[in-house]
This record gives sequence, C-alpha cells and structure tokens, in this order.
Amino acid sequence: MSYNTFGHLFRVTTWGESHGPALGATVDGCPPGVALEARQIQHLLDRRKPGQSRHTTQRREPDEVEILSGVHEGRTTGTPIQLMIRNMDQRSKDYGNIADTFRPGHADITYHQKYGLRDPRGGGRSSARETAARVAAGGIAREALKSLVPDLRITGYMVQMGPHRIDRARFDPAEIERNPFWVPDARAAEDWAKALDQIRKDGNSVGAMIECVASGVPAGLGAPIYAKLDTDLAAAMMSINAVKGVEIGAGMQAAMLTGSENADEIEMGEDGPRYRSNKAGGILGGISTGQEVVLRFAVKPTSSITTPRASILRDGSPTEVITKGRHDPCVGIRAVPVAEAMMSCVLLDHLMLHRAQTGALGPIGQIGS
Amino acid sequence: MSYNTFGHLFRVTTWGESHGPALGATVDGCPPGVALEARQIQHLLDRRKPGQSRHTTQRREPDEVEILSGVHEGRTTGTPIQLMIRNMDQRSKDYGNIADTFRPGHADITYHQKYGLRDPRGGGRSSARETAARVAAGGIAREALKSLVPDLRITGYMVQMGPHRIDRARFDPAEIERNPFWVPDARAAEDWAKALDQIRKDGNSVGAMIECVASGVPAGLGAPIYAKLDTDLAAAMMSINAVKGVEIGAGMQAAMLTGSENADEIEMGEDGPRYRSNKAGGILGGISTGQEVVLRFAVKPTSSITTPRASILRDGSPTEVITKGRHDPCVGIRAVPVAEAMMSCVLLDHLMLHRAQTGALGPIGQIGS
Amino acid sequence: MSYNTFGHLFRVTTWGESHGPALGATVDGCPPGVALEARQIQHLLDRRKPGQSRHTTQRREPDEVEILSGVHEGRTTGTPIQLMIRNMDQRSKDYGNIADTFRPGHADITYHQKYGLRDPRGGGRSSARETAARVAAGGIAREALKSLVPDLRITGYMVQMGPHRIDRARFDPAEIERNPFWVPDARAAEDWAKALDQIRKDGNSVGAMIECVASGVPAGLGAPIYAKLDTDLAAAMMSINAVKGVEIGAGMQAAMLTGSENADEIEMGEDGPRYRSNKAGGILGGISTGQEVVLRFAVKPTSSITTPRASILRDGSPTEVITKGRHDPCVGIRAVPVAEAMMSCVLLDHLMLHRAQTGALGPIGQIGS
Amino acid sequence: MSYNTFGHLFRVTTWGESHGPALGATVDGCPPGVALEARQIQHLLDRRKPGQSRHTTQRREPDEVEILSGVHEGRTTGTPIQLMIRNMDQRSKDYGNIADTFRPGHADITYHQKYGLRDPRGGGRSSARETAARVAAGGIAREALKSLVPDLRITGYMVQMGPHRIDRARFDPAEIERNPFWVPDARAAEDWAKALDQIRKDGNSVGAMIECVASGVPAGLGAPIYAKLDTDLAAAMMSINAVKGVEIGAGMQAAMLTGSENADEIEMGEDGPRYRSNKAGGILGGISTGQEVVLRFAVKPTSSITTPRASILRDGSPTEVITKGRHDPCVGIRAVPVAEAMMSCVLLDHLMLHRAQTGALGPIGQIGS
Repeated sequence: MSYNTFGHLFRVTTWGESHGPALGATVDGCPPGVALEARQIQHLLDRRKPGQSRHTTQRREPDEVEILSGVHEGRTTGTPIQLMIRNMDQRSKDYGNIADTFRPGHADITYHQKYGLRDPRGGGRSSARETAARVAAGGIAREALKSLVPDLRITGYMVQMGPHRIDRARFDPAEIERNPFWVPDARAAEDWAKALDQIRKDGNSVGAMIECVASGVPAGLGAPIYAKLDTDLAAAMMSINAVKGVEIGAGMQAAMLTGSENADEIEMGEDGPRYRSNKAGGILGGISTGQEVVLRFAVKPTSSITTPRASILRDGSPTEVITKGRHDPCVGIRAVPVAEAMMSCVLLDHLMLHRAQTGALGPIGQIGS
Repeated sequence: MSYNTFGHLFRVTTWGESHGPALGATVDGCPPGVALEARQIQHLLDRRKPGQSRHTTQRREPDEVEILSGVHEGRTTGTPIQLMIRNMDQRSKDYGNIADTFRPGHADITYHQKYGLRDPRGGGRSSARETAARVAAGGIAREALKSLVPDLRITGYMVQMGPHRIDRARFDPAEIERNPFWVPDARAAEDWAKALDQIRKDGNSVGAMIECVASGVPAGLGAPIYAKLDTDLAAAMMSINAVKGVEIGAGMQAAMLTGSENADEIEMGEDGPRYRSNKAGGILGGISTGQEVVLRFAVKPTSSITTPRASILRDGSPTEVITKGRHDPCVGIRAVPVAEAMMSCVLLDHLMLHRAQTGALGPIGQIGS
Repeated sequence: MSYNTFGHLFRVTTWGESHGPALGATVDGCPPGVALEARQIQHLLDRRKPGQSRHTTQRREPDEVEILSGVHEGRTTGTPIQLMIRNMDQRSKDYGNIADTFRPGHADITYHQKYGLRDPRGGGRSSARETAARVAAGGIAREALKSLVPDLRITGYMVQMGPHRIDRARFDPAEIERNPFWVPDARAAEDWAKALDQIRKDGNSVGAMIECVASGVPAGLGAPIYAKLDTDLAAAMMSINAVKGVEIGAGMQAAMLTGSENADEIEMGEDGPRYRSNKAGGILGGISTGQEVVLRFAVKPTSSITTPRASILRDGSPTEVITKGRHDPCVGIRAVPVAEAMMSCVLLDHLMLHRAQTGALGPIGQIGS
Repeated sequence: MSYNTFGHLFRVTTWGESHGPALGATVDGCPPGVALEARQIQHLLDRRKPGQSRHTTQRREPDEVEILSGVHEGRTTGTPIQLMIRNMDQRSKDYGNIADTFRPGHADITYHQKYGLRDPRGGGRSSARETAARVAAGGIAREALKSLVPDLRITGYMVQMGPHRIDRARFDPAEIERNPFWVPDARAAEDWAKALDQIRKDGNSVGAMIECVASGVPAGLGAPIYAKLDTDLAAAMMSINAVKGVEIGAGMQAAMLTGSENADEIEMGEDGPRYRSNKAGGILGGISTGQEVVLRFAVKPTSSITTPRASILRDGSPTEVITKGRHDPCVGIRAVPVAEAMMSCVLLDHLMLHRAQTGALGPIGQIGS
C-alpha cells in the first residue's frame, strides 16, 4: 500500500477532497472483458449516498459517477478505469470559522503538523466523502468477481450501535435492505431509530460495529505471511476513516478461548472438507478455507458534534469547539457499503494473486479420493 | 506488502521454514551509519527464544543470528542486511505421522489446497518460529530509531490470558521484565502461572491479548488514506501468526462510545499540544498526534494440543488428531517481543516516509506563537 | 512500476485513451507546500500540444488541464493531485475502418491478443496522446524540484532525425526554443524542415534521437542495484510510446571503448570533486556523481503512414493498410517535452528516496578537508 | 523496483557484498510444484564463475549455492526460496590500499557521497560478484518457465568486443557454448582471444555488446504503459553493473529508419500471425507479438586497470590510481549468463502478471477463423 493506493494487482488509488472540485478513483489492473456500466456503480453509490434517511447527514450530493476511461462498449478493456464524482453541495461557508481551529477528534491538527498547511474546508481526505470513491471502485471489483466466481456473495450489516447490539437469534438477512441501518434484526432497527433520534437531539453522535461476510470464497486465497488474506482485509478496513479496530472470525474473543474451543474440527462433506464451527473466520494460516470469511470492525462516533469541546487555535490559545454543518450522527451506518466495497477489492486482488501463482481460481491440492 | 515483504522503504522480507536448514530476514533500505552488532539482535532473539521458562515450548533452539551482509566495522552501510538463523533442533520425527493429516486450527489444509503440496515438518512458514526473523529485523529498526529519535520507546506486554485480565490499578511497568509473561502486574503473573500449569496439564492451550505502546513518537507520521499509520500497524500485527484481531486506542470499544466521550479534548502544553485523554491511541486521520501510540491484538490459543480433535486425512477419511511435539500452551507470551519488533519496523518506515515527503523527522506545521 | 504507475515515492499513474472522454494523471506523494498553478502545467502542455507547427499532427486539441484535487490556494497539500484533460477533437470516423484491421507497427494486434478486445479508436493507451498526462505530471515534479534544488535544470532536445544528426560544433542551447524541432543547431533546423516536408509528401515518417540533460543534480541520488538512477531513467524513457533504445553517458558506444578511455579521471575542484570527462553520464554505480546526467533514446518512426503495408484482418485474411488520419511524420519531435517530464519525475523521486534514507538532499560523505 | 528487489510477482532481492561473508538472493512468489535442485542452479553459476578461461578474473570462487528454504523434496513449495553463496577467496589485502582512494570509473566516490561510509573491500554491491545472485535466481525462473512454457528458449551471446563485431553471415548458434566468449561466430572467437590477450598485457580493458534472444514467447505478455515488457527488460538489463545502454529490436537504429522500413508487415501463418521482419524486437505497444524477443546492451570496460589514472583521495588531495587485484579484462563476457538470468526473471514475471489478469498463459484474443 502506497499513500493513496491499495491492492497488489487490482490497484485502487483514490483522490480528491470533500470540498474540492471532484473526487474519484483510478482503478488499475482490472481483468479485461468484464461487463461494466456506470449504472451498476451508481446503484452502489446511491446506497452510500448521504441524505437517504433522517439518520445520515443532510448534505445533498448527487454522487453521480462518470467513467472517463478503460471501458469500451460496456466492457472493461484491461486499461485503467477512471471514476470521477463531481462535488456539488460544497457550502464552504459552513467551514469558514474553522480554518484556524483544531476540532477535537478530527485530523485538523495532524494534517497541520504533518503538511504545514491544509484545506480547511471539511475533512479533506479524511472526510467520509472519500469513501464514495472506494464504493465506486468496489463496484468494479464486484462485477469482476461476478464473472470469475459467480457464487461469491459479500454482505455487510451493522451488529452494534453504541451499547445496542443485535440479537443473533433474530438474525434475518432479508431485513438488511429494509431498514436504514442495514441491520439484520427488525426489532433492533426500530429501537436504534429512536436511540439515534435522541442522540442527534442531544447534539451528540455514536459509534458502531459492522460485520461483513463473504460466502462462496474458494479455498486457497491468501498467503502465509505478509500477504495473509486476513492481513489485507484488516488493512483494507482499518484504512477506512474512523475505524479503530478490526477482527476476523472469533477475533478479540480468541484471547478468551482454549485451544479445544478454538480449533474448528474438520469433516468430509459432499464436495470437500467441512468445518464444524468457524472460529477461524474462514482463514487458516492466512489462506481461505472455503468457509465464510467473517470480519468485524468498529467505527468511532463522528467527531463533528454540537456538544462544546475544549480545544486550541493554531496560535495555541484555548477555544471551545461546536461543529455545526450537516453531519452523520452515526457515521458507521454509511460504512456498510464501504466495507462491502473494500472486501470486494481485496478478494478480487487475492483471486488474481492466486491465479498468477498457481493458474487456478481455487484449490489446486485435492482432498478426498 | 508483497507475499513475504513488508514495509514501504524499510523493507523486511522473511524467509525459511521451521524445519528447513535456516530462516532469516532480508532487510533493505536501512539508513546508513547506524551502529549495529549481532549481539544487539541476539539479545532480542534471546527474549523470544523458546524454553525460557516452563510456560513456553521446550524445543531448544539457540537462535543464533549471523549477519551476512550490509554491515561493515559495526555500522550499517545502507545496503541490504541479511540475517540468518540456522535451525538446530529439528526433530522431524515428531512430525512424521502428520504428513497426510490436517491438524484442526492449523494451516496444513489450506497450504495443501493452495499450493498442492507442503512441507509437513512443523508449521512451515506458519510456525511461530518465523517470528524469530521478525524479531531480528526489528532489532535493526530499533537501533535505527535510537539514532533518529532517541526518546522513542516501544514496550509490549500481556494484558489478558484466556479469561484472566490484568488489573490496571496494579499496572507497574517495572514488572514486565520480571516475569515470564511480560505482564505489568505482579499478582497476575503469579495467578497466570498457576492457571497455565493447569492448562498444560489438561493438554490444552489458551489465547492472549497483547498491548504495545510507543511513547516519544513525533507528531506527523502516517498519511490520511491507505498508508494510515494505524493501517500499517494493523497490517503488521495481523500478519503475525495466530493473531485474530487488532485495535488502536479505544479500539473495538469505540463502537460503544458517544462523540463527546470519544473525541480527545486538546489543550496547550509547555512544548506543544496536549490531550486530556487518548481514545485515539495517538493517531488522528491516520497521522500520529505525538501522544502514546497504543495498540492491542488478540492471539488465538495454540492449535497444537493433546486433546483429541476430529479431522480428516488427505484422502478425505475421518481421523482424530492429537498433536504431540513440544508446543507453547500460550503462544501469545512469545508474541510480546514480536509485537515490539513489528512496531519498531512500522515506526521507522513511517519516519522515513515522512522524511521523504517533508524533509523532517517530526511536525513541520507549528502550533503556538 | 505497476501497469500504469511509475515512481517509488513520487508516484504517477496515467489513465485514459486517445479517443475516450478524457485522460490524465494521478500524482501521489508530492511534497506539501509546493507553489503550483494550472497555468504552469498548461505552459508545458502547450509545448507538447499537436498542431504547433506544420511538422506535427494537425489534430487540434486544446489540451486544457484541470486540477481536480490536492492543491489549495496555490499550494500542494501533500495529498493526491488529479490532473484531467478532456479530449475534444475525437473524430472517431477517421478510425472507423480499422476496427478489424491490424495496422503494422501498431499495438492493434497485441492489444487484441492480450485483452481479447480493444478500443479501436486511435491507439488507445499507446497513442502519443497518453504522453500529455506525463507532461502534466512532470510539471508538478518540475515545480517541486524548483523548490528543493533551485539550481537543477533539465533540458531535452533532438540530436538526430532519420539519417540527419546535429553538428556538435554548432551546439547552441539558445536555439532549442527557437525552432519546431527543439534542435540546438540552427542549420540542422533548416535542413530538417525541408527533409521532413519531403517525408510527409512521400506518405512516410521518420525516427529520431532525443538527448536529455540534467545539470545541478546533487551527488548521491540513486542506489547500487535495482533502484540505480540509470535503471529508473532507462525504464522511464523506455516506457514512452515508440521508444526502442535508451543509453546513459557513452551509452552503446561504451562497448567500443577501453578502460583507460572510459573511466573519467577525477580531480579536486573548488567546491568538490570534478571530472575530466563524462563518459559515465553523471552516474557511477547507479548513484549520481554531481556531473551532468546525460541520456539519449531512440524513437521509432510513426507507424501511421499512407504508404500501403501488408497486414491481416481479424479473421486472418490478408489486407493492405494505408493509415489516414492526422499523424506526426516524426513523433520524436513531441517526445522532447515528454523526456523532460519523465526525467523530472525520476529525479524528484530519487531525491525523496535519498532524503528518506539519509535525511539529506545531497551528499552526506564529505570530500576534502 | 525497490532498492534491491525487482519483479512484480516473481520478486528477487539480492544481498551481499563481494568481500563479506556471503551473498545471495531471496526469491519470493515462485509458483509451487516446480522441480528444483541445487545442481540446476549450480550448473548456471558455473557458467558465470570466474576463472573459467584466461579471459576472466583469476579470483577463484567455488560459488557453491545452498538452498536454505522454499524447496521440499525437490519441489518448490510456493514460499520464499533463499539462495546463499559463501564468499571464499576474499583476499582483502588486495584492496587494503584503496580505503581512502576513489578509483576512477568505480562507485567508490558515489558510495562515499551517498552513504557517508563504505566497505572498501572490492566493489561492495557494485562488484560483478553481485551478479552471481542474479544467475542463481534466474535459474529458478528458468525451471519455472520450463514447466509453464516448455518451448520457450533464452539465449545470450556476445556480438561485439571493443571495435570487433561478429559477422552475422557466420552466425552459428552451436558455436556459442564452444568458446569462452559465448560468441556465435567461430572466427570472431579466435580473433577476440588474441585481441583480449593484448589488452590484458597492456594493462587495459575493453567494453562489449551482448545480445539476448527469447524464442517461443507467447503473444500477449506485457502491458501498454509503465509495465511494458520492453520497459521491464530495459530496467532489468540496465540494473546490471556496468551496463550503459539497452535496446530492443531495431533499437537505437530505429532513429535512422522511415516508417515504411520500420513497421513489420504481417501475414497469416499456419498457426497464427507471422511477421515479415522483426524491427519491433517482438514487442508492439509494450506487449509481446509472439516473435523472438530481441534485446542488446552495452557493457562498459572494466574500470579496474593497471594503466595509471588521475584521481583524488578522501581528503581531496590528488593521486594516481593503478588497480591491481584480479580483474576481468572484459567484464562483458561474464554478463552473458546474467542477461539470460534477468530475461528469464522478467519473462516469468510477465507470464504471471498476464495470467493474473486474463487467466491465460498466452493470447486470449483469437486471430483467424
């Protein structure tokens, strides 16, 4: 990973600030011949777009994507695909008063320290807006995966908002697309709506936990050491703004377990090995097992709140910060499509790496007679 | 990160299997002129070495490091440094019976599926033994850091073993080097010793949580998007064998917090900005704040246990696996020096990246008049 | 170098086809605080722009560059800079008849073989038009170099067109900007104009040799093995469309020399070592000496000519190809600003690499007392 | 390419100095299951080994390679392969008197300037000895190619030594292995032997030109812009010590040609397209055509000569340098196996890149009905 590029072979470079003329992604290394139209990407962007419900920022951005290169007559040509999204609703005045103020919890102060200057309008590169470019790039990965491994499915959803967790007994995947929280638990969706209304009224915000699952991942993706599939997934998720922790399978709970609880027992299924549990989250020794790949990550609460917080100005003098503007009370909500996008990119990248090294899109070592 | 290389500018490639002739690390991009002798690296290797107490594997490896290149008259020359450790205590017979068996929780099955063949002696690249190469490479990073940022300190320790957590009220850094668990809580050290004896007697193993803290890190290291300091730290830790989750600062708990609880308030200190808390774990927008950089990761319990577990043979037929050999009942213990090594490498790498882009080893934007 | 990215730290990714909606460059890793305005880049693009004289293609492209990110109030912010140039004069009809024809000397056939499909309008990525993006990116590198090493100068010029070489005795740098060939020899400019008119009338084209020289390059840039300064310069030049050979200093002639003729003798000058000759082209062991860095490369003649050439159609049947459209009779002419751009990028990149490793922008080892 | 690593997917990192304890190569990303034994690599090393004839340095190095990892029971496992060669005949005393002297034409002065210190014994990383590691790594690439594309052949040979060129009319590939110059012209071999004896007697040295040809390369390898097959080949060759120029196909001569002379006409052969000439050197638009891939590079004369040359000491005072020791009078001779090794690595790397992106080892677009 370079400053603004991730991926080994399917390489995505995002660019652009929240309040500049445009933002986008340069996608290099896509397989040729993948059917791709702007509307497929647009559909994914619309899911992430602000203003979809009262629970997200009221900034109105059409987020219309333009494909500037790399696609001819509805198919990828194998050359770089440039995706551009113009910024429309920039209202820089909302940010006018913060040019010399460091907002607590924001990157204002570290940008200033690192670069000696910054674009004070919005969060610059650290704005959640940057993730639109990831979702767009992920849309390409998704179409490429569809053509290479048709049975692969990637699904993200929220499992926690502040202290509120889903009830796994009520888990219903069909619910995910039915509520503004992408939560697979209808009751939680109702409760969270009320809780979030209260938080917004209080001028506050709240954190969240996202889970993202890929089924139909062939065994054999990844590598044992620094290109472990879990390493690249962790990096991909941790690179999302506001993410503070990532885990695979049993994750942080693995610290609590004994070896006999943790090691998933293996048996032979009809079409290959099967596991009696999935503490591993579908990855052993950095390589996919063929089970569901399961990860979770925590998104911190939005730092832009109207509750006053102590801070300093650039000259060092003390101040109190109230961040107005139009902000997400729970930015984790909009992280769901971002998680799916990043996972799509990582899995495609690892499919290509595996194919490079072995010639196959899945296992080359047979099991069973 | 390539398959077996990590780092942007300070690049470490580890190589070697647990039961081959040797293992080691190729370290490229080290600053020239750093005072370096084998004994400094040896000292760190000795900390990680098995057999230091009854709580780690009784495999006896001298882990003697040889510097084969890149150092002349006690100074690094700026060219690649090759570190080699010969394997001595290989006892392949311990592994003779597992050539066709897939041990649950191990990478046996995924190696077979990915590569079509594997070295069945020990865990190959996925053995904890690979981490000796990381510790050796980290020793070079540590010496380079010492010359560039003398006040920087990196300290790892255990904070949890299975269900047993440290009591933060008893936190005493001086304890860390006094007990075989590197735990900063003398009482915990005693209790854990008993608990681990029992686990070993039961033919079982247990997971652990490691915390690693860097103080004296200059503000300004990192970058906003894919080379976020937290991204690279997460990737570095997740790349360690058996790690299942990584978090920075408040970490997974950030999902529980409100914005007013989470955003660390800022005030002006004598020599720069100061924060009233450290939920951020020393990183905002992917860039270090100058506070302590704090991370934690979970290590799963060793899968090599003598409790029988159901599995299959290569031909798909069922079997029961009991893994004898000499294994760590809590492999997390030996992950402590590995964490320090990886953090050293990442911080040095980011110091160099920051210096490349800005010319400085710390902040270039001033705060205060 | 990835498919469409070059550079280690100052990383340029170009994108776009000659006949798509736009093309451009994503520039990542630029130092922050560099004064930069679109007009500086525009000035360089105008030099490369087609239609500047009767000796280049009459395609009319305004080549207007738009900076979409990474610059705030006239200074680079340290985040990715997106440069976009809209294609205007696309006249796809010129290319309508070649969708199934493989033009000799073009990449039509290899694109088809590699990707299974191609955008048949123009040369796609292999069009000389792609180099506009390089020139734009090089403009950023040039401004950054100006702020870091003010005395550094990069100058490209033609030294040969077909069989016509310049007379080194008449070499006058002031002439370079005075004629459409960027040739430092006024007489050659006149002669070449006549020769090229004839070639165009004959429906033919001609090759060229470009020389590019950087003066004021500090000693110490580069590295001994795979990141040799000459390696990266060679790769940068060879990556330009139609380039078939690259040489440094004495270059291919070095094969003819004896050791005593070749090794540049050293003496002490007033402000450091001085060399009595420059067979090395300013690079020893992959590292700059402080002398002028001198390279040359050969550009093949444009393959788009109206002289009929035998070829085949996609179905394998024979055909004869006459390429109409508006083409450069000597595409090497427009390679001059491209060479300067690429050299700017490589030198900035190596300055940053050197600064990362040593902390300096030039030599750290002193010579003389 | 990083400082000491080259390759995208088949990544080779060489390490070690000419007079340190050992040198070698870390090879990462090799396909698994490739039959590999040390003796295959040893055979190639023996070809490059000094002291094979009176025309190369009389330094006696057994150059015995040890495989330390990544191979199990005669097959590559897909994990990193460490190749180590111990230095035996180090005779540091030969170099004792040059610790403070900068030898003209050598990297002594630039190492000192870049790193502030250097290992004065031999040429360090810039010694021709480093190329032993390349030959060893290339041996692995060669075996992998053999299993993937059995018909691919790579052959290097000398075509010029100083002013002496081969007579293409006498070109006989069978001669290459019969003489110490690897020259495909028996008469030239005789003449050059006499000429080189004289040069050695004169205390001088001489440059050379190497040609390297790959036949059986599938069409479709490479990419249009920065990962052009010719770019990577040029970089690979230019990275070899003492190389000053590289060309593909018509190469530097392309500057002399007209478009009608240069563009290779295409016709349909029995099993695919055929070309009436090969000015392109087997590469169009950065992508292989299926023709022979042809490159040439110039090697400068050895700078270590006994003819006195003016230079300076570290304190700036003037001196005269006579380099004794045991040196090659024409280091180009031993560059032949190095060229083959580098070409093997690049072609394997590009086969893997192409397979990653398209799933095939050759063209995916059909020609002919």
